[in-house]
This record gives sequence, structure tokens and C-alpha cells, in this order.
Amino acid sequence: MKHIEASEIEKMEKIFRLNLINSCTGYKSANLIATKSKSGNPNVAVFSSITHMGSDPAMLGFVTRPLNVSRNTYQNIRDTSYFTVNHIHEKMIEQAHHTAAKYDEEISEFHKTGLNEEYLDDFHAPYVKQSEVKLGCKYLNEYHIKENDTLLVVAAIEHIYFDEGIQMPDGWLRLDDAGTVAINGLDGYSLPSLLDRFHYARPNQEVRSFFSKEKN
Amino acid sequence: MKHIEASEIEKMEKIFRLNLINSCTGYKSANLIATKSKSGNPNVAVFSSITHMGSDPAMLGFVTRPLNVSRNTYQNIRDTSYFTVNHIHEKMIEQAHHTAAKYDEEISEFHKTGLNEEYLDDFHAPYVKQSEVKLGCKYLNEYHIKENDTLLVVAAIEHIYFDEGIQMPDGWLRLDDAGTVAINGLDGYSLPSLLDRFHYARPNQEVRSFFSKEKN
Repeated sequence: MKHIEASEIEKMEKIFRLNLINSCTGYKSANLIATKSKSGNPNVAVFSSITHMGSDPAMLGFVTRPLNVSRNTYQNIRDTSYFTVNHIHEKMIEQAHHTAAKYDEEISEFHKTGLNEEYLDDFHAPYVKQSEVKLGCKYLNEYHIKENDTLLVVAAIEHIYFDEGIQMPDGWLRLDDAGTVAINGLDGYSLPSLLDRFHYARPNQEVRSFFSKEKN
Repeated sequence: MKHIEASEIEKMEKIFRLNLINSCTGYKSANLIATKSKSGNPNVAVFSSITHMGSDPAMLGFVTRPLNVSRNTYQNIRDTSYFTVNHIHEKMIEQAHHTAAKYDEEISEFHKTGLNEEYLDDFHAPYVKQSEVKLGCKYLNEYHIKENDTLLVVAAIEHIYFDEGIQMPDGWLRLDDAGTVAINGLDGYSLPSLLDRFHYARPNQEVRSFFSKEKN
């Protein structure tokens, strides 16, 4: 196996390091965050750092640099408190990646990428019409990560929209039925398919699949 | 589309809510965190919250509850500062899921699950021999998320091991060449395959694939 240590990582060329370090932690979630500014400009941007934070209360988090390409997203969230999280699917990976281009603040990525705004149940922020799983979120707090000057933004999940066909009777959403993708590194879009789903693991018992009835 | 709002989420049966909220944010990374206690007991546990935090310096983070099944992992990290992050691959999803069972502290999941310890370059914590991408990490800090009493643990990536065949010339690790999986919800293991990889997005330009040379 190839071995790379800290001193070599520090000395790497910047893009090489970005590619390696962004891919070495495994697959990342693939979502579009959409917001609307105080003055009414909609904004949509791809994020790969959205992470489940807890179920009760229902919370998610994401990491951002206040001054990078996502600054419009961050500023709109701070100004209005509301944003939406919209899954990226196989059919829209090019449009989703296009939202990472640095357009001026007054230009909406919705107009440039072919993604469509959708307003649901009087929520302030737009949803992405093409997304088959979408969340309406409210800003709760942020934590400054002093080790690299990033922010962890923490939010409440207030609305969930999805096609009923992808939900199993126990609440679980089967994401490959929605064609949701995952991100490999900064710029790789991958389509997962379910291998198996397992029951709660108990000591000294074989792991049991949801699908192989003979084992249950 | 099915619409669920905050008041309904709060009233849901606990397991139903866990399944829904854990799956609605998209795919999660699939890793095993391995540690060794002060007294020398190794420990390994599945984590789906490991997230890229930054490339320079190379950092990752994960979310944990100090008092849940992962408490041995957390305590060992606090006591020794070191842990490893090991990708979960298609061939080992049953063993990986088995590590979530609540074994007593003195019982190593390595002995119960068929996963093997491996010690590399005098690093304190064990790696998982079966993993094809593994990271040696050092605890840097933690942030208490007061909204739900969880901790975000932040760590430096000090060692990276991988099979050279999965790395592209620009540093990127092609994870489907390693058979790395992603997690859907709490207990679904999915195998992604790469759809496409795109060049840096620029305003008013078509998104360009790494693979379709005629477009470049």
C-alpha cells in the first residue's frame, strides 16, 4: 500500500492535496442548498458536507468557509434564517456541478443552470423543483472551528418532502429508488445501489438482513 | 409528494423517526473507527458521520454522543489522542455492521466480528486489515453542540494508506475502484459507481467531463 504522512501532505501541490484529502474520507452527501436573499434574489449551490446531526430534535449540519463561493448561501441564511436542502439525482449532476461557478451575487444560479425554483407551503426559501427529496430548514446556531477557520452551521429540519414510493413502512427512505447520488472528492458524482440492509446488531448474534427472510 | 412538518416529526414513534431523519440528508460515509485503550484493549466501531473538514491542514470531523455505543471509541480517543478511520467495502458490510453491537468494554469487536487488527509505522491505534483506504488521525479538539448535546470531534489526518491503483494523477482517489460503500440511513449499505467527474465549474461555460475528451 502507498503510505503518505503528514509532512508530505503539507508539501503537496494545492490541487493535488484538495483532490486527495477530499476523497480519502469516503463518499459524501450530494445536495443543493437553496436560499433567497433579503432583497429577493434566489441562490442555489452544491454542498457535499451536509451531515445528519440528530433525530430528536431533527437536525443537520454543514461546514462552510464564510468567504468562499458559498458566501451568498451563508449570508442569505444569516439574514433570513431559512434554507432548503435538495437531493442531487443522476439526471441533474451537470446542472448541480454548474452551481459551483462563481456568479455575481445578483445573478441567480437558477437562471444559469436550468434548475427550477419551487415555493412550497409559504416557506421563505425556494426548493429545487427537480429534487425528489427536499428539506425545509431553519438556522439554529453556528460553531467556529478554530483549527481551520471554518463554520459548522447547525439547523432544524422543519419540512420534509419526498415521493411516497421510496419510503419503507419503518420510516426509512430508500435512496436508490430516488436516484440520489453521492460525491467522491470535489467533483466525482457516483450512483449508489443498495447491497443490503441489516437489523439492529446484537452481541454474539449473526447480523440479519431485512431481505433474507429465512435468516430471521 | 408526501409532506411532513416539524410537529409531525416530533410526534413520530422513535424508530420510525430515526429511520426517516437518518436517511433524508442523503448518503453518508461508511467507516470504521479503531482505537486502543490505555490498558491496551483494541476497539472498532462503525461511524457514518465522518466528514471532510478541510485540506490544508488535512482535517476530518465526526459527531458522537459521549454516552452511546461509541463511548469506548470516544474515551480511547480522549485518553490516547489517536484513532484510525478505515473504509468499509462491499466484502465486509456484515462485519462492519456487527461492530455496532454493544459488547462490554473488555471485549474487542475485532475478536467478535472477524475484522483484523493491523499496526503500521508505530501508530498507537490499530488499523483494520481488510480496509483498502485507511487514515491515521490525531485528536485536535471537540465542540459541544448544545442544541442536542452531541460532540463534534475534530482531528488531523496524519497518515494515509491506499492501493496506488485507485489514485488518479491529480491526487483523486477513485472510490469505486476500492469497492468503498456508502450508508443509507442507519443500516443500509450501498455500493456507488462513478457516473462522471467534472472540471472546475466556470460562469457561462458548459460543465466539462474528465472523460469525454471531445468536449475539452
